[in-house]
Amino acid sequence: MQVDIPEVLAEVKAAFAEYERALVTNDVAVLQDLFRKDPRTLRYGPAENLYGWEQIAAFRAARPAVGLERTLANTVITTYGRHFATANTEFLRGGRRGRQSQTWVRFPEGWRVVAAHVSLMPLPDQAP
Amino acid sequence: MQVDIPEVLAEVKAAFAEYERALVTNDVAVLQDLFRKDPRTLRYGPAENLYGWEQIAAFRAARPAVGLERTLANTVITTYGRHFATANTEFLRGGRRGRQSQTWVRFPEGWRVVAAHVSLMPLPDQAP
Repeated sequence: MQVDIPEVLAEVKAAFAEYERALVTNDVAVLQDLFRKDPRTLRYGPAENLYGWEQIAAFRAARPAVGLERTLANTVITTYGRHFATANTEFLRGGRRGRQSQTWVRFPEGWRVVAAHVSLMPLPDQAP
Repeated sequence: MQVDIPEVLAEVKAAFAEYERALVTNDVAVLQDLFRKDPRTLRYGPAENLYGWEQIAAFRAARPAVGLERTLANTVITTYGRHFATANTEFLRGGRRGRQSQTWVRFPEGWRVVAAHVSLMPLPDQAP
């Protein structure tokens, strides 16, 4: 198991960047395409749990396209072998800090997200 | 890329169950062991971002060992090939709902978590 093979890491970084571009520009077709079209694909969002590609795609299509800009920090992308990767990043949007975790798998059709988790850090009076 | 090979899925389900047992019983040694001992391993917790095995291990060691019981719901474990897996679950603890995402990789030493993200659903007045 080779970790961070340079050309594999470059591929995943490109896929991650394309996803980020699609996210902040609300390019719904690309966002939908980059998640694996499968009922096992899932995405936990800041306030919703979405199971299967269909639920995720419907959520994207319905999301307001404003206020999507964000700044990333402490991004960590790591590849394991030639078909598996994790991409984790903190972000700042509208004064709130959040975290985004993605698991990417390389299929014949390309790199796809199979699981994602996005959450906001709790406000000071909401600390768990 | 074969998804959910039965014997691989059984291995990951066993590792996931062992992690859950260790979590609710505060078996710190097992919790520490099941995360890959590497600086790239990371864990976003409900209110903290931990980078590297050392930070995660220190957090485990310092955590109060009370009120750890929880109930899992909608657990989804999926394997990709023979070395990669995702484990996602909702949980209920102390009246709060949360989500736990783990990415598992099989190394020579066994299945290990390389990235994890745990978050609580926002309270009604904290919806993003």
